[in-house]
Formats: sequence, C-alpha cells, structure tokens
Amino acid sequence: MLTTEDNLKKHQIHGIEKGTEPPSQIAKQLNQQYETDIGVFFAEVAKLPLEILCKVLFELPSHVFEETLSRIPHKKMATALSYLTSDDLTDFLQRVKQYDQNYAKSTYHLLAPDEQAEVAHLSQFPADQAGAYMQMEMLSAELTDTLAHVKQQVRAFRREEPNSPIYKLFVVDAEQHLVATLHFTDLLLFDERNTMQEIIAQAVIHHHKPLSVHNSTPIEKVIHLFEEYELSVIAVINDEEQLQGRIVFEDIYDLIRMQEQSQALKMAGADKDAEEESLESARKARLHWLFINLAALLCAVFVVNVYKETIEQIVALAVLMPIVAALGGNVGNQAVTVTVRKIALGQIDWQNAFPVIKREIIMSSINGLIMGAIVSSITFIWFHQALLGLVIAMAIIINLAVAGLMGSMIPLLIKKFGGDPAIASPLLLTTATDAIGFFVFLGLAELILI
Amino acid sequence: MLTTEDNLKKHQIHGIEKGTEPPSQIAKQLNQQYETDIGVFFAEVAKLPLEILCKVLFELPSHVFEETLSRIPHKKMATALSYLTSDDLTDFLQRVKQYDQNYAKSTYHLLAPDEQAEVAHLSQFPADQAGAYMQMEMLSAELTDTLAHVKQQVRAFRREEPNSPIYKLFVVDAEQHLVATLHFTDLLLFDERNTMQEIIAQAVIHHHKPLSVHNSTPIEKVIHLFEEYELSVIAVINDEEQLQGRIVFEDIYDLIRMQEQSQALKMAGADKDAEEESLESARKARLHWLFINLAALLCAVFVVNVYKETIEQIVALAVLMPIVAALGGNVGNQAVTVTVRKIALGQIDWQNAFPVIKREIIMSSINGLIMGAIVSSITFIWFHQALLGLVIAMAIIINLAVAGLMGSMIPLLIKKFGGDPAIASPLLLTTATDAIGFFVFLGLAELILI
Repeated sequence: MLTTEDNLKKHQIHGIEKGTEPPSQIAKQLNQQYETDIGVFFAEVAKLPLEILCKVLFELPSHVFEETLSRIPHKKMATALSYLTSDDLTDFLQRVKQYDQNYAKSTYHLLAPDEQAEVAHLSQFPADQAGAYMQMEMLSAELTDTLAHVKQQVRAFRREEPNSPIYKLFVVDAEQHLVATLHFTDLLLFDERNTMQEIIAQAVIHHHKPLSVHNSTPIEKVIHLFEEYELSVIAVINDEEQLQGRIVFEDIYDLIRMQEQSQALKMAGADKDAEEESLESARKARLHWLFINLAALLCAVFVVNVYKETIEQIVALAVLMPIVAALGGNVGNQAVTVTVRKIALGQIDWQNAFPVIKREIIMSSINGLIMGAIVSSITFIWFHQALLGLVIAMAIIINLAVAGLMGSMIPLLIKKFGGDPAIASPLLLTTATDAIGFFVFLGLAELILI
Repeated sequence: MLTTEDNLKKHQIHGIEKGTEPPSQIAKQLNQQYETDIGVFFAEVAKLPLEILCKVLFELPSHVFEETLSRIPHKKMATALSYLTSDDLTDFLQRVKQYDQNYAKSTYHLLAPDEQAEVAHLSQFPADQAGAYMQMEMLSAELTDTLAHVKQQVRAFRREEPNSPIYKLFVVDAEQHLVATLHFTDLLLFDERNTMQEIIAQAVIHHHKPLSVHNSTPIEKVIHLFEEYELSVIAVINDEEQLQGRIVFEDIYDLIRMQEQSQALKMAGADKDAEEESLESARKARLHWLFINLAALLCAVFVVNVYKETIEQIVALAVLMPIVAALGGNVGNQAVTVTVRKIALGQIDWQNAFPVIKREIIMSSINGLIMGAIVSSITFIWFHQALLGLVIAMAIIINLAVAGLMGSMIPLLIKKFGGDPAIASPLLLTTATDAIGFFVFLGLAELILI
C-alpha cells in the first residue's frame, strides 16, 4: 500500500511536509490505530497539539469521538476549543452535548466570557439557517476609520485569531450597517491617511451595494449565492440590518457535498443525519423506508394476485414477469434521477416541464422498442411461443414508455405540491412501474393467450 | 409565482440590484423566452453586454446554445471571449467546437495572440487533469521585487483583467520556482521598499513551503486538497516545477457538485456528460445500461424457471416472490449507497472494511427479522397457510441479511480491484438479491410445502 508521501509524490502534489497533514488525515490515521491498538491511540491523542486537537477529534467516527472525550480533562478541552472559530466551537460543543451533556456544560463554563457569549448566540440558530454557519470573528472598519487604523486591526486580528483568515474588509456606518466590502488587494493601493469613506469613493471595483444575507436566510439560498456569484465570503446581518458575522467559502465546500449526499441517500431510503449517528438510529430510519416500500409492494402483488389463474395455466408468465417490471423500474429510475437533479439545480419546474417530459418519453419509448424486440426474441427462443413473445414485447414497450412519463412527471408533481422529490419519487416510481408492468403483461397474456 | 425580487426579499438576501443578476439567472430567463417567443429571445441576446455574453451563453441548454451561436458574428464573439479568464475561454471554445468546428476556428483566429497561446496551451490537458482547470491570469512577483513594484502590478492587473480576482500573491525565484504564497492582508503591513525576500523572512504566517500541484495532477486530488486544506487558490506548476497558473475556489464549487452528481447519475445508469449532450447520446448511454441489466435479469429469472413446477402447484408463490426480491433489493441498495459514499469520501477501504460490513449485516438482519415477521403475518391472513408464512419469513430474513453483506462488500471489492463502485455496484447487487431472493423463497417452498 502507498504511504501518504508516496501518494503525494505520485500525484505530484508539492508543499505538504511531514507534520502538516490536515486534521482529516490525522483523524484517519488515528482511527486505524484505534482499531489496532487502543492504548497507542490514546497516547497519540494525548500528544496532539492543542491547536488542532478539536479539529482532529471532530473528524473521528461517532463511537471513537465519544470514547475519546471522557479522556480529555475539561480544562485542556476548553483551551483547545479556544483555537476554533466561533462557528466551529459552537458545532463542537453541540456535538459533545449529544453524548455527554455534563461534559459540554463543564467545558462551556471554562471558556472565556466572549467565547461563551458567541456560543450562546450562535446556538440559537437552527441548522438550516445562515446564522448557524456564521463566524463572528472578522475584520470590520467604520467609514471614518483610516487605513492606518485598519492596519492596526489586522495586526491585532492576526495575533488574537491566528487560525482565522481575513479575506475581505467589511465597512460599516456608525449604526453598524454594512456599506461596502473591500478587497485587501485594493486597500494596498491607498495611502495610510485615507479613510474608508474616501477609499470607497475612489475604488472602482465595488460600486454595488455589497451582498449580505440575514441570519435567518435558509442556508440553501446562501449556498446558491456563493455558487452563482462565485463568492469567497458573505456578510451576515441581524434584524436591525447590522453586521453580525460572515460565512466563508471553506464551509461552502462541505455544505455542497452534504447537500448532494443527503439527496443521494434520501433517494435510496437512508437518512444522512441518522447514518452518522448510532447503528440504531440508522437502522430505524432505514426500516421506516422498508415499511413504506412494503405497502407499495403489496399494491403491485395484488395486481399479480388478480391474474393467479392465468399464471396457473401459463407458468412461463411467472418466470418472465420480473423482466417487464424490472426494466420499467430501471428506465423510470434513470428518468427520476435525471429529473430530480434538474429540479435541485433549479433548471426546471412545473411551468417549463414539457420539454423535459417529452425528452424522457421519447428516450424511453425508443429504448422500449429496442428492449421489447430483444426480450421477445429471447422469449421465443426459450419458450417457442410466438404469441408469448408478442405479449412480452407489447408489455415492455408500454411499460417503458409509461416509466419515462412517470419518471419525469412524479418528481415535478411532488415539487409542485411542496414535497421533496428526492424522498418520494423513487418509491412512487417503482410502485407504478411494478404494478403497471404486471398489469399490462398479465392482462395482455390473459387477453391474447387464453 | 414569485418574482426574483420578491424571492430575494422573502429570504432576506440584500445587495442584489436589478441588472446585476448572475449569468445563470439571466440564462434561465432567456431560456424561458426561447420557449415562448424566439424572436424576443434573439433580440435580448443581441442586447447582452459583451462582458457577460459568453458566461450567459455557456449556461444555456445545448440546443439553445448551438442555435444562438450562429447568430453572433465572429468578431463580436472574439471580443466577448476576451472578457473570460483563460480557463473559461478554453472551455467555451471547446464547447463551440463540438457544434461548429469552423465557427470555433474562425473565432480563435480573431483572438489576441496571447489569448491564442493560452488557449493552445490549456487545450492540451485532458478534462481529468489539473491543467484543464488552471487560469493563466494571476499575479506573481520575484523575490527581488519590492512591494512598490507589486503595487504597480496590482494596478496593471486590475486594468487588464478587471474580471479576474487576485486572492494571493505567488512569489517565485529567478527560475520561476514557487517560493511562497502571500496574503495581501499581510502585504498591507509592510513598507513599500521591502522586497518579497525581506517580507517572507518576516512574515510569520506562512513559513511552510507553499502548496502546489502539477498540471497533470488528477483533478480529483486537487478537489480533495482544496477541501482538506480549506484553500482559496492553489498554484499549478509544470514539468520544470515552474509556476504556470492557478486554480481558484470558485471552480471547486462546480467541481464538487459535478463529482457528486456524476456519481449519483452513474448509480442510476445514466451518464452525466451524455445527459448534457443530445437526446441521442443520452438515450444510447442509458440503453447500454439496460442491456447489461437485461443480462443480469435473465440470471434471476433462470432461477425462477428452475422452480416452474413448484409455482404451478402453489401459484401464491408467484404472487409473493416479488416481495422477497424487492425487499432484498431495497435493503441492499441502502447498504450500497451508504458504502459507495463512504468509499468516495475516502473513509473506508478494503483494509478497514470489517466494521462497516458488520454494521450493515447487523442492521439488515434486525430489519430482516422485523420485515419477515410482518410479511409472514400478512401472508397468513391473506392465504390462510401457516407454512407459507413460515417459508416467506425465512426467505426474507435470509435474503435481507445477505443483502446487507452484499451491499457493503460489492462496492469495496470493486474498489479493491480498481473499478468504479458507483457504476457496477447497484447492478451486481440487484442481480444478487433477485436471484438469491427467488432461490431461497422458491427453494424453501419446494422443500417445506411440497
């Protein structure tokens, strides 16, 4: 197996020296140690520098995180926590709270008063609001401040928050309302004695009102803004429209991944949050989905039950019916996945759905013709019954065309009525293609063959 | 329906003024116009400012893009293209080339010589290498340059590349080897007469060798680096280890989404690139998948065929067999999706797979017991046969346990042997759960009921 160093060399990644691995890498190595020798694991954790301790712990799997927690004295933890930005600090304490409320409480009381205030403030925002992802550490200046003053602030910020990058300067008026967002590249070009007011009057780059979001803005909207406007940072304001904090691009990387993954898991009937918790909560979330699926399956098998006597007479129908249903499910699933993605990307809604539905029906009909021809040939060779081949061809053509229609319409309809297309679409789709597949195939068989 | 403005207001997003919508928004509105009144559409496109023309065009669906292209004179297009950064310019011309090779060629020859050189250089990198995502516009300084010189360069860069943000300063030695990456925030604190050499000697923030990647580094590795090190920009170097360009965070947003989406589509048997091209190429990619699925389905139905006579005697088996197979498919699909994600995130590989496989088997076995009990009760109530209820309960318990095992092992094995777990896993899984489900259910039925 390649070592990290070999791997970096192979891919020509330069500048990563030993000891500067990112927290996720260190956590991965520690986790392997946990599996092989728990004693070495705890010794290594104890040796971790305080600056990165919390970041590494955060990357450990739940059960390892929980077990490690109790081995770290509150005082040490409080010091390690002070190296985190306010948003990460709040996140960390909230996760600790899930496992050990007392530990979280004791550690919280050992934090500096300003850190306590920040945690208390940020904890109030639910996970789907911008406020929950805001850092309160940032650099801002008033309109009347000179560039010399800003330089002093940069020095102080670098000293107090060595782990917090700066990115941009937020300029506010006397009431703390955001007036401008300035690049440091631009600031470099001005004289120390210039005030922010004077600089804004001259700077030609940012003449628009700077972008900002409210702390209750849905986080999805914020992610969308970062992507559309290619932002590196955005200001967060409160009810009085005063500057409160900032959201930075590095959190957006995570958020985009999380958004996509939670959608992919939802489509498979698993819940992202539950999967990251205990086996029990993951299992229950999945069981829930199986119940709903069973109910849907019963609808499909009731259709089969109607044609019991037909199957008794031609048992080949029982052999072939899974093909009709499963091909419909596959085609429908392709359409559902593509459509759910298009909806999530904001490319389509019910108003401009027609071209998409048309496209899906055309595709699935052509593929239905091809698959119908192939399966009917196989059937004929296998069972030597021309009419049975005809029946299965017709059933496949009809079921696949319907699958294309349903696969594109179901997600759009669910979206129109305010539901989440990723959750319900795959289920409704399979139920439809199973039931219709069985009905068309067995129904045609009864009509034509008996 | 809400207008954009109402929507911004509702979500408390501030600072977006009329006329400053991002290209994707403008493209969406234009696309609606294309559907309703193509005349208005072309009039609107003609009125688009040259600075954003190409960015807007790029966001249009393929068929609209293609049709619009021919209406824009080469000269106008060449001017509009010069507002793009080198990477976007290269991308754009490559897309144009797909539809109209002559148009791309004529436009290319109207570009400025330096732009032509950049396009020629960047076009040589395949889409999976860092070089293809590199911008050649950037700000760099030599060790002997003074800060005053850098300031002049910033002014020049702002003038020549008004749409290209700066982020960081790359410092190189006389051979163009990367020596340091400096924040402008830090540069602000130094005197004009300081050279880069002197500044680096003093700056305490970045004492490590700066991160860089080679232009042939796989783009996945680059994305990974951005996420792990929370980077905003990374330097790209050539075979001689000289600074060549940079990759910036805003491209990473797109790349993360694309990575996740192409994986989700792959799992459903659709190809992301093909889906974005013509209906024909999307359809063919999907048909390909259906062929493979059919082959797999045939394996499963051959199992049913073995038990033809058993089904003839107890037709309830034909009615109930889809339940056993489909529940197995669902449970296995949950395990596959979760495992494929974990592999993609680099959380597990074959070496440390045991805990994951164990977890999946435990979950699916417990859920199997529950589902087995429920389905056997339903069967008993429906068909009044205690033994049939017993058979289906046993079949479900076995098939679901196997589904958990297969669902976690298949992706890990595919990965171990160098394949892409997202492509083959769902198919192999369903084949396994179908075949095993039919075999166990019908086999037990023959043993116990006949």
